[in-house]
Amino acid sequence: MDKCLVTFHPDNKKVKVNKGTDILNAAIAAGVYINSSCGGEGVCGRCKVIVRKGDVRSEPTGRLTKEELQKGFCLACRSTIHSNAGIEIPLSSRLKKQQILTEEAKVERLRGVFSEAGEIEGGIELKEREVFSHSPLATKLFLKLPPPTLKDNLSDLERLYREVRRKRDIPILQTGLANVKKIGKIFRESNWEVTVLLGKRNETTEIVLLEPGDTSGRDFGVAVDIGTTTIVAALIDLNTKKTLSTKAAYNRQASYGEDVITRMIYAGKESGLERLHHLIIDTMNELVLAMTDECGISLNEITCVMCAGNMTMVHLLLRVDPTYLRREPYVPTANFMPVIRAAEAGIKINPRGLLDCIPGVSSYVGADIVAGVLASGIDEKEALSMLIDIGTNGEVVLGNKDWLTCCSSSAGPAFEGSGVSSGVRAMEGAIQRVEITPKDFEVTYSTIGKTKAIGICGSGYIDSLAELLKAGVIDRSGKLREDIASARVREGKEGLEFVLVRGKETQDGEDVVVTQVDIINLIRSKGAIYTAAKVLVNKMGLELTDIKKIYLAGGFGNYLNIEKSIRIGLLPDLERDRFEFIGNTSLAGAKFALLSYDAMRKAKEIARKMAYIELSVEPSFMNEYTGSLFIPHTDIDRFPSVMSSQLTRPKGPEKF
Amino acid sequence: MDKCLVTFHPDNKKVKVNKGTDILNAAIAAGVYINSSCGGEGVCGRCKVIVRKGDVRSEPTGRLTKEELQKGFCLACRSTIHSNAGIEIPLSSRLKKQQILTEEAKVERLRGVFSEAGEIEGGIELKEREVFSHSPLATKLFLKLPPPTLKDNLSDLERLYREVRRKRDIPILQTGLANVKKIGKIFRESNWEVTVLLGKRNETTEIVLLEPGDTSGRDFGVAVDIGTTTIVAALIDLNTKKTLSTKAAYNRQASYGEDVITRMIYAGKESGLERLHHLIIDTMNELVLAMTDECGISLNEITCVMCAGNMTMVHLLLRVDPTYLRREPYVPTANFMPVIRAAEAGIKINPRGLLDCIPGVSSYVGADIVAGVLASGIDEKEALSMLIDIGTNGEVVLGNKDWLTCCSSSAGPAFEGSGVSSGVRAMEGAIQRVEITPKDFEVTYSTIGKTKAIGICGSGYIDSLAELLKAGVIDRSGKLREDIASARVREGKEGLEFVLVRGKETQDGEDVVVTQVDIINLIRSKGAIYTAAKVLVNKMGLELTDIKKIYLAGGFGNYLNIEKSIRIGLLPDLERDRFEFIGNTSLAGAKFALLSYDAMRKAKEIARKMAYIELSVEPSFMNEYTGSLFIPHTDIDRFPSVMSSQLTRPKGPEKF
Repeated sequence: MDKCLVTFHPDNKKVKVNKGTDILNAAIAAGVYINSSCGGEGVCGRCKVIVRKGDVRSEPTGRLTKEELQKGFCLACRSTIHSNAGIEIPLSSRLKKQQILTEEAKVERLRGVFSEAGEIEGGIELKEREVFSHSPLATKLFLKLPPPTLKDNLSDLERLYREVRRKRDIPILQTGLANVKKIGKIFRESNWEVTVLLGKRNETTEIVLLEPGDTSGRDFGVAVDIGTTTIVAALIDLNTKKTLSTKAAYNRQASYGEDVITRMIYAGKESGLERLHHLIIDTMNELVLAMTDECGISLNEITCVMCAGNMTMVHLLLRVDPTYLRREPYVPTANFMPVIRAAEAGIKINPRGLLDCIPGVSSYVGADIVAGVLASGIDEKEALSMLIDIGTNGEVVLGNKDWLTCCSSSAGPAFEGSGVSSGVRAMEGAIQRVEITPKDFEVTYSTIGKTKAIGICGSGYIDSLAELLKAGVIDRSGKLREDIASARVREGKEGLEFVLVRGKETQDGEDVVVTQVDIINLIRSKGAIYTAAKVLVNKMGLELTDIKKIYLAGGFGNYLNIEKSIRIGLLPDLERDRFEFIGNTSLAGAKFALLSYDAMRKAKEIARKMAYIELSVEPSFMNEYTGSLFIPHTDIDRFPSVMSSQLTRPKGPEKF
Repeated sequence: MDKCLVTFHPDNKKVKVNKGTDILNAAIAAGVYINSSCGGEGVCGRCKVIVRKGDVRSEPTGRLTKEELQKGFCLACRSTIHSNAGIEIPLSSRLKKQQILTEEAKVERLRGVFSEAGEIEGGIELKEREVFSHSPLATKLFLKLPPPTLKDNLSDLERLYREVRRKRDIPILQTGLANVKKIGKIFRESNWEVTVLLGKRNETTEIVLLEPGDTSGRDFGVAVDIGTTTIVAALIDLNTKKTLSTKAAYNRQASYGEDVITRMIYAGKESGLERLHHLIIDTMNELVLAMTDECGISLNEITCVMCAGNMTMVHLLLRVDPTYLRREPYVPTANFMPVIRAAEAGIKINPRGLLDCIPGVSSYVGADIVAGVLASGIDEKEALSMLIDIGTNGEVVLGNKDWLTCCSSSAGPAFEGSGVSSGVRAMEGAIQRVEITPKDFEVTYSTIGKTKAIGICGSGYIDSLAELLKAGVIDRSGKLREDIASARVREGKEGLEFVLVRGKETQDGEDVVVTQVDIINLIRSKGAIYTAAKVLVNKMGLELTDIKKIYLAGGFGNYLNIEKSIRIGLLPDLERDRFEFIGNTSLAGAKFALLSYDAMRKAKEIARKMAYIELSVEPSFMNEYTGSLFIPHTDIDRFPSVMSSQLTRPKGPEKF
């Protein structure tokens, strides 16, 4: 088949592809990342590129203006390459390298968040919890074996088993033929001093590795949170339980769609599953490599990986077709995935090292939420507690030590900085705090890392919405008022918008704006989350006020304003000290499970006992959702503290 | 479902398969045999094929070079068929088919021997024994799964586990990722009617295979006795417990040495281990192929293999270095080998099928003897019993339901027809009975299958020795008398010899002779076996007369003359009804363990409780052995019935 050489600018990255390949796939093959939220369907119009030279054939699209067409723009997903070509990726279409670099900064925050959420020693969470035993997914054990004699003539393997069992209580011990083949030589060449790696494979223990001499001092594992948008990995010393490094990267699957539904659909296309699988694996391998490089650890010394993530991500990680997740009755292929060798999934650690996944509950409540329950410990509390994980899907868990119930709602990616005009994730330059003075509509804001602004992250949007309402820029339905005396409200490309930060103060010189469309998106998102919490509580015959503690998880960096979250109606109006922001609990839970098989056993117990409620079939759902599409809610009586804090009762529809 | 027609070259074999089938399975379905040693895991890279035409989709692999990829090579196990296709199997990837012509005749006899030794139903042995449950190493189970609903929304895998557990009590159930990947599609395309193959992996059960529809009616296994000289395999219907075919072949390793010591030494040479391993595997594959061809069974329908054999053979079967077996203190790498996929050892059955080995006791008392104890049932008897297995090594087991002890002596291969001038195995044309009239030294003999003679097998040699002595052709030291009036005694190439059958009556026209050297060999062999039995009994503070029953096992065909065996001093002089000839108990035991996990559990118990006595360090051994190098023994008083049956006390040294 004919090959075409494609050069991507400005990175100057080159790749040879088959004639007829589309630009999106050519870019991925070249390691160049292009925005795309529809999964290459030609619908979102985010993957605009400019053809500099070559025979590139594009399908007609309504997503490009005449001006753009004249400038040589085309959609990467709808254009195929038929000769050597030069393609430019404009700034707006790039998952910028600069942004990947800024992840270094985010790492610090994640680390901070994690230690708040439950660092294994001394963390806030753990103090409240029963301490799990130190029993990692894979443990090294040094053994001095008594050499055989005519009297003690046990075979090599049974001798090894006997010695392991003298030190550990392991009822079912197994090993593969690969180790049996090596054992005779290793024993005799190492003077009967060997290190075994004991790996947990559910109810059985495997002798995973056999090494001459004492290598027990070096045993490392990786905990990973595979998010739809971001993958975060932590390198852990399995002996000291310390986190040595934490790194994050975009989930490169983002080129094939922003949410799990788009990814599932893409997985059903030809080679789609393989492609999505490899994009996760490549990202994970890069994170692992970066961490081992940083810490001077060999990949061979990493003996196990524990993964958390939503159900779609866990399926794609293991190259299991996620098609059936989105088809009624929405069942996963497996909530409890088998323990495998990491190499089977393509993860480059010790070739015999293990990979395990925290179990999930249902198609839309996955391992990330089970990890969150594990990390927050609501499954062990007497008092009624709730965990709200705010992401592209908003998952809510309600319960106590006796029972757990959960649901999921499509919140959309607005709070993750996607699908909103100036949205960015919680990263350096992201606006995270906002205040607007009611008289002159002046804006005070702060960014993560205190650098120039590049956009608004989730917590910044929550603040913005609350402040815009308080200042009277929007009404309770979210409508921007055209009549206020400020140039900040203006007509933009997509209708009215509020200029939060002017271009002269931003990194790229572009104004940071909140548009009318953004506000509607944000209201829908906050409404979906509130509704999920309310319907779940209703379903159990309880009231929101019965909840003694609400844990908030999500990728907000290390800041989330509870007061303002209540003011916009994202969270119910309860005493403020009932709320606690605990950050990325998915990663925290994965660390727990990596370091302690007791924690993993607990995670399994949680996954088994948690009852899933399908919101879409709950009769009260649509009513509740419609009511939540105001700020804070159609029924203002549900938010008494918000009502009393406002001088005048704001306008809006009366209580139904 | 779409069907694709696949043509395999150069055999031009055609098969129709479902779209999406991988090439490896398509080939097996077509009866074309492709090398693959990893069980279709994409790991070994042995199943390289060339796609000549058609839509074949391959997963990325590191097992192919760029050159190979350019030439259209792909791995059969990692490539799926999506249209009619033409596939070429290069020579290097092909499993050669060879006819074992001489074996055809032996089958009938081995079958006969086995049914005497312990056919699963109605056999002599089983009548005396507790009947083991019907629980094969791998069992198929047909399931009609309730499809998931919004209320019963268990994941596919947990649904499968639930249904299996409704029908079977299995505490620890596991499955590999390969099956998890298929499960969603298979369930939905088969209308939730599937067959699972449940395999025993020691204390756990694996879902080995998942097939659409009801295939439970066809589930076959193979039991194998891997002898140093001969490999015998039986094809068993795991549902009906019937033996469908039994075939035997020489162990091709014989070209690398006759006994296990030579093989061990060869294994220590460069590529020696690999070579010996492959010779066993190739032989086994041919036997399996011949049996499946004969019975119209596809290799894919064979789901498990149970092996017995001496410790060296089991090590070589699994490519485990046997070097340490022959070095003091003589310990095996493993008495209990892990259950593996048969494909891991290179056995061509279903690519996911299992291979298990009966456990052994020590370097020189292996799985064959444990299988023999299992088949004879001496571990359950009140009365003191003995099992003597006459082979290249002579192993002796002594005990009852409370204790078992065993030893091994190097008997040499004479009774297996090796290392003696006219020796053949028990096969068609082998002389098995001999009588010699004292006056004229005329010989009456019968051959197996009543055909022309081709040589002498073990039972023929026992008869010959006894008759030569009775006729006065040899004296009690085994010396041929030159002075007898018969042309049958003559000077041969290696000294004096006795012509048993003249060339005109033999198949190849060559005289069948017993040489002086043969006689010395045979006396050494019989002496070694008698000595092992005597020293073992001494060691336990007992007398040979305390033994209530002696079971004789070995490759003698279906005939062994007990009277004559006592007359030459191979067996102790006890009442004749205390002896029972039970044939190939190694194969019988392997069949038991294949068909019943209870039997396998019993085999493990036997292996654990049997105490091994190292003869070479027993002080009385050399004295006893020296005394046994006469016919029947230096101490004729040990053989009172032999003494009294002879008219005159034969010449020979007096009692020491």
